[in-house]
Amino acid sequence: MEDKRVLIIGAVALGPKVACRLKRLMPDADVLMIDQDEHISYGGCGMPYFISGDVSDVRELMSTSFHMVRTPEFFEDAKGVRVRSRTRALSIDRKAKTVRVRDLSTGQEEDLHYDQLVLGMGSLANKLPIPGGDLPQVMSLSNLRSAIAIKESISRGEVDKAVIIGAGAIGCEMAEALADLWGIETTMVEIADQVLPVILDPSLARMVQKHMEEKGVTIHLDEMVREIRADGGETALRLMTSKGEIGADLVISAIGVRPNSQLARDAGLLVSPRGGITVNGRLQTSDPDIYAGGDCIEVPHLVTGKPVFFPQGSLANRQGRVIGTNLAGGFATFKGVVGSFSIKIFDLAVSATGIPLTMARREGIDAMHAFVVQADRAHFYPTQDLMYLLLTVDRKTRRILGAQGVAANGDALVGRINSIAGILPFHATLDDLSNLEVAYSPPYASALDIVNAAANTAENILDGYNRPMDVDEFERCFLDEKAEDTLCLDVRGPANAAPFVARFGDRWINIPQETLQARMAEVPRDRRLVLVCNSGVRSYEAMRQLENAGICRTANLQGGVAALKKTGMIQLEEAREESGE
Amino acid sequence: MEDKRVLIIGAVALGPKVACRLKRLMPDADVLMIDQDEHISYGGCGMPYFISGDVSDVRELMSTSFHMVRTPEFFEDAKGVRVRSRTRALSIDRKAKTVRVRDLSTGQEEDLHYDQLVLGMGSLANKLPIPGGDLPQVMSLSNLRSAIAIKESISRGEVDKAVIIGAGAIGCEMAEALADLWGIETTMVEIADQVLPVILDPSLARMVQKHMEEKGVTIHLDEMVREIRADGGETALRLMTSKGEIGADLVISAIGVRPNSQLARDAGLLVSPRGGITVNGRLQTSDPDIYAGGDCIEVPHLVTGKPVFFPQGSLANRQGRVIGTNLAGGFATFKGVVGSFSIKIFDLAVSATGIPLTMARREGIDAMHAFVVQADRAHFYPTQDLMYLLLTVDRKTRRILGAQGVAANGDALVGRINSIAGILPFHATLDDLSNLEVAYSPPYASALDIVNAAANTAENILDGYNRPMDVDEFERCFLDEKAEDTLCLDVRGPANAAPFVARFGDRWINIPQETLQARMAEVPRDRRLVLVCNSGVRSYEAMRQLENAGICRTANLQGGVAALKKTGMIQLEEAREESGE
Repeated sequence: MEDKRVLIIGAVALGPKVACRLKRLMPDADVLMIDQDEHISYGGCGMPYFISGDVSDVRELMSTSFHMVRTPEFFEDAKGVRVRSRTRALSIDRKAKTVRVRDLSTGQEEDLHYDQLVLGMGSLANKLPIPGGDLPQVMSLSNLRSAIAIKESISRGEVDKAVIIGAGAIGCEMAEALADLWGIETTMVEIADQVLPVILDPSLARMVQKHMEEKGVTIHLDEMVREIRADGGETALRLMTSKGEIGADLVISAIGVRPNSQLARDAGLLVSPRGGITVNGRLQTSDPDIYAGGDCIEVPHLVTGKPVFFPQGSLANRQGRVIGTNLAGGFATFKGVVGSFSIKIFDLAVSATGIPLTMARREGIDAMHAFVVQADRAHFYPTQDLMYLLLTVDRKTRRILGAQGVAANGDALVGRINSIAGILPFHATLDDLSNLEVAYSPPYASALDIVNAAANTAENILDGYNRPMDVDEFERCFLDEKAEDTLCLDVRGPANAAPFVARFGDRWINIPQETLQARMAEVPRDRRLVLVCNSGVRSYEAMRQLENAGICRTANLQGGVAALKKTGMIQLEEAREESGE
Repeated sequence: MEDKRVLIIGAVALGPKVACRLKRLMPDADVLMIDQDEHISYGGCGMPYFISGDVSDVRELMSTSFHMVRTPEFFEDAKGVRVRSRTRALSIDRKAKTVRVRDLSTGQEEDLHYDQLVLGMGSLANKLPIPGGDLPQVMSLSNLRSAIAIKESISRGEVDKAVIIGAGAIGCEMAEALADLWGIETTMVEIADQVLPVILDPSLARMVQKHMEEKGVTIHLDEMVREIRADGGETALRLMTSKGEIGADLVISAIGVRPNSQLARDAGLLVSPRGGITVNGRLQTSDPDIYAGGDCIEVPHLVTGKPVFFPQGSLANRQGRVIGTNLAGGFATFKGVVGSFSIKIFDLAVSATGIPLTMARREGIDAMHAFVVQADRAHFYPTQDLMYLLLTVDRKTRRILGAQGVAANGDALVGRINSIAGILPFHATLDDLSNLEVAYSPPYASALDIVNAAANTAENILDGYNRPMDVDEFERCFLDEKAEDTLCLDVRGPANAAPFVARFGDRWINIPQETLQARMAEVPRDRRLVLVCNSGVRSYEAMRQLENAGICRTANLQGGVAALKKTGMIQLEEAREESGE
C-alpha cells in the first residue's frame, strides 16, 4: 500500500469524525473503519427519543442534517472512507501493526494492517450482577440494536408495567420515554438516596424527583434489586428488592456504562484502574501509533485535575477532530472536560457543569454553595419562568467549581450553564462570574442576571453578610416536629404568609420586610429565626436589618418558598399576587 | 450628622443599586438619593414594551419582582434610603463637599452636604440638530416621562404614520412597538447603509432588515433627514430628507445617547473627549470622594483595551454593586466591558458580544470572520430552528474578538453569545472555543454545537483548508450580472438545486457532493467556482475534494443558501426535503 493506512475500530461517534476530518485534511489517506455492529454513525443520545416516538424512524438517528443516511456506501461515496460493518476486532498485534478481525456474517478471520490505529470502541452497559439479570425481558440501552429491541417489545403491546433500574441520566430519559408517550406504568429503582446521583446535589435532585412523580413515575430510592424472577403472575417478571417486590413486564437496566477497553488492555496498552484507556493531550495511547477517544478513554477533569470517565457523544466529536488533525500531521490537543451535562425530563430541563458540592467535599475541597431562584427574563416582561441555580465555590480561593440548575425553559437554563462551563477552564472566580457580561435585554435576561446574582450571593455568604440555610437543613430543623427551638420569620406580604401562619401557628411569624424596621420590637430575641421570603432576596435584606438591631441568631432560607415548593417539602396554596421575587 | 453621609445623584439604575448595597453592608450609613425626575428606579430598558403594550402599566417598570412599587416611601421603609425626587443637582462644590440642588416643585435651592458623592446621572438622548427637530411631535425615548408621552400620543389615535430616525437598538425596538401592536405605518430612516450599525456586520444586518421589512416596516438606508416641517397635508409633519420627502404624524428620534456629564465637567472632574466621566477600576472619579457609574461614565473595553461608552442598565447594576462595596469600606473593582448586547425585533433575536469585524479593522487588527448556520438542537430532534452565527477572530493570535448572531429562538442564541462573552476577558482563542464544553443533549444542543463549529470553521479558514466567500461578496461577484467569470457549483441534491438551475441556467451547475468524486471530469476547470450547499458544510467537503483533484480556484459560500435566503438576496421556492444541513 502506498498511502498511509489508518484503521479505525468503532464507527459510532468518534470513528466517523476522525475519518472525515482526516480525509478532508489528507485526501490521499487510506482510511478503513470497522464496527462489529450493522448500524454505524448514529446519534446514540437520540435513542430515548426514538423509543418514545419523538423520533419516528431509526434512520433519522443515522442521517446527516441534510437527510442522507450514513451507510457504508455514503461514507465511501461522500467521504472516501471505507467501512466494514459487522466486523469485530479480536486482537491487536502492535509489533506487526495488524488487527485480527472476524467478519460476523461469514465467520472468516483476517489480519488488517495499519500504520496508525484509532480506538473508538465506546462504552459497555454495566450488566446487572444479580440472578435473573440476563432474562430476555431485562434490557439495556447499549446500542441502536437494543433500542430497536426495546421499542419493538413495547410496540407489540407486551408492556403494561416497566421497572427502570438506575435513576441516572439514561434512566430518567427512559422513564419519560416509557411513561409519557406509551403510558406505561413506570417505576424507577435507585440504590442511592436521590435521582441523578453524582450529577446533582440533593436539593435539586428532590426537585427533579417531584417533577417525575407528578408525571406519574413511581420512584423508589435507597432500594436495591436483588433478584428478578420470571414467575410473575399478572406481570412477566417479579423484582425482589431490598424493600419488597415489584412486578414488571419489562426491566430496563440503566446502571451505568464502563469504557470498552478490553482490546486495548489485551494489547498491553496503558489502561487506568477504572478501565479507561490512558491517553496524552494529543489523544495518543501509550503506543504513539495508536490513538483513542470517545467513551473508551479517560481524560483530565479541568476542575479537579484528576482523570475521569465522562462518556458524551459531544466529547467524542471534539476528540475525533483532534485525532483527525494529529493523524494528518497537525498538532491538536484535547485538554480535558469540565463535566457539562444537560437533560430534558418531561417538562423540566436539568443542566450542570463542573462538580457538585458532594464531589468537591469528597475531593477534600473546602467548598460551599449558593442557591438562587430567579426568572429567565426581566421581571416586568410578560412571559417568564423561574430558574433554580446552585453554584459551588471553593471557600479559600473563591474559584467556581461548578453550577447546576433546573428550569422549565431549557434553552435559557442551558445557556447560563454553558456560560459558566466556558469560564471553568480559566479557573474563574466569583469576581469573574459576578461580572460575566450576559447580553441584557428584557426578553432574554434580567438586568442582574441569575449567573451574576448567584456569584453575588456566594460572595455575600463568604463575606459573612448572608448566613444561608438549605432546604434540606430547613426540613431537619423546622419541618421535623422535634425541632422546637426554631421559628420562621416570613418577611413577605400577609397574603403570601397567611396559609403558612395558618399551618404552623405561632412558629411562623409574618412581618413584611418593608415594615420590619418599625416593628423590630415584635421580633423574638430568644429563638433561632429562619428568615423566609419567596426567593431569599428580601429575607437577606431582613437579615441585614436584624443584625443591625442586634438580632444575629438568624439563617436565610436559600431559594425561599419557591424552593420549598419546587422540592415538594411544603405544598400550600397561596395568593398569586406575589409570585416570583 | 454623626454617620457618614453618602449623597447619590440619579435614582434610576445605578443610584438605587449603590444605595441598597451600601445600606446592606453598612446599615448606619446616611444615604440620600436625589433625582430631578418624579419617576425613580425604573427599568428603562422596558420602555419600548410599555409603549407597545406588552407591559400594560407603567408601574410595572417601577416595581420589584415581588410587585411593590419602588417609590421614595418604599426606599425609606424597606431600604432605609432617603429619596428626594424632582430635585435637580445644579453644581458641586468639591472643597465644601456640598451639592447645590433645586427643588423643582418649590423652586427652592439649598446646599446638601456629602462625605462621599455618587454620580449616576445616566445619559441624554442626542437632539436632532435640524430645523423642526424641536417640534412637539418629534419625541425621543429619553426617560419614563417621554415614554408616557409617546404612548399617550398614540393612544389618542393621533398617529397613523410614524417615522423613526435612527436604526440602532432603540429605533428597532420602537419600530416593533409601533408597527406590531398599534399597526402604525412605520418608516425607519438611517444615515448609515445598514440597520444596527456599529453592532452588526453587514450580512447579519441584512437579515434583520429583511425580517423588519417582512413585518411591514419601511426602511430607508443611506438617507439623512434634513428638516422637519409642520405644514404636512395628510400628515402632521413632512420630513425633508437627502433623498426625498416622508410624511409622518409622529417622529421618534433615536439617534443615540451621550453621557450626562456636564455636572461633573463643571466641577472640574476628569471627563473624556467623548463625554464620559473618567473613572478608575474602583469607579472613583479624579476626586477620590466622588464615585461615578452607569451611563455617564466610560469604561475599558476588554477586547480593544480602549475606553468606551457602553450604556446598559445591566452594567449600571453591576457597577452600582461595586461602588456600594467600596463606599462600605470594601474593595471591589469593575474591570470593563466586552460589549454584550441582545434585542428582540419582532420574531427575531439579535445578539452580539465583543467587537464586529468592521470595528476590529478600524482598530488596526488583522481580523477575519467565520459564518456558520446551524440548528439549535440535534438535527434529528423533532423541533428546531436555525441559528446564524458570525465569529470575529484575530488572524495573528487566533484570539476571539467577538461574535454576533440572529435566530428565531432567542434563548438559544443569547445562551451561545453569553458563553462566548464569558471567555472574552480571558483572551480566549479559537482552541478554547473549539472545546467550549456546551452541555449536550438532543433537546438543547448539537453534538458539535454551533459555537464549536464556528471556531472549527474559523480554524479551517486560517489553516488554508477553507476559502470562504461572504454573501456580500457573492452578491457582487455572482448576482451582479457583470460578473461573468464566476460559476456556482451546487453540491446539494437535485431537488434543492433545480430552481436555481432554472433561474441561473448554465451559470449554476449541480453535482451532489456524494457523486462529486465520480463526476469530477464534469467540473469546469477554466472558471472560478463558488461552491454552494445549504449551510457551507457540504460545500467545504467538496472544496477539499476539488483541491485534491487539482481544482483550486474555488470559494465556499459561507452560510450557503440558508444565508442567501435569510438576507433576501435570493428568494426561490424549493423542495423542503433537504432543509437545514
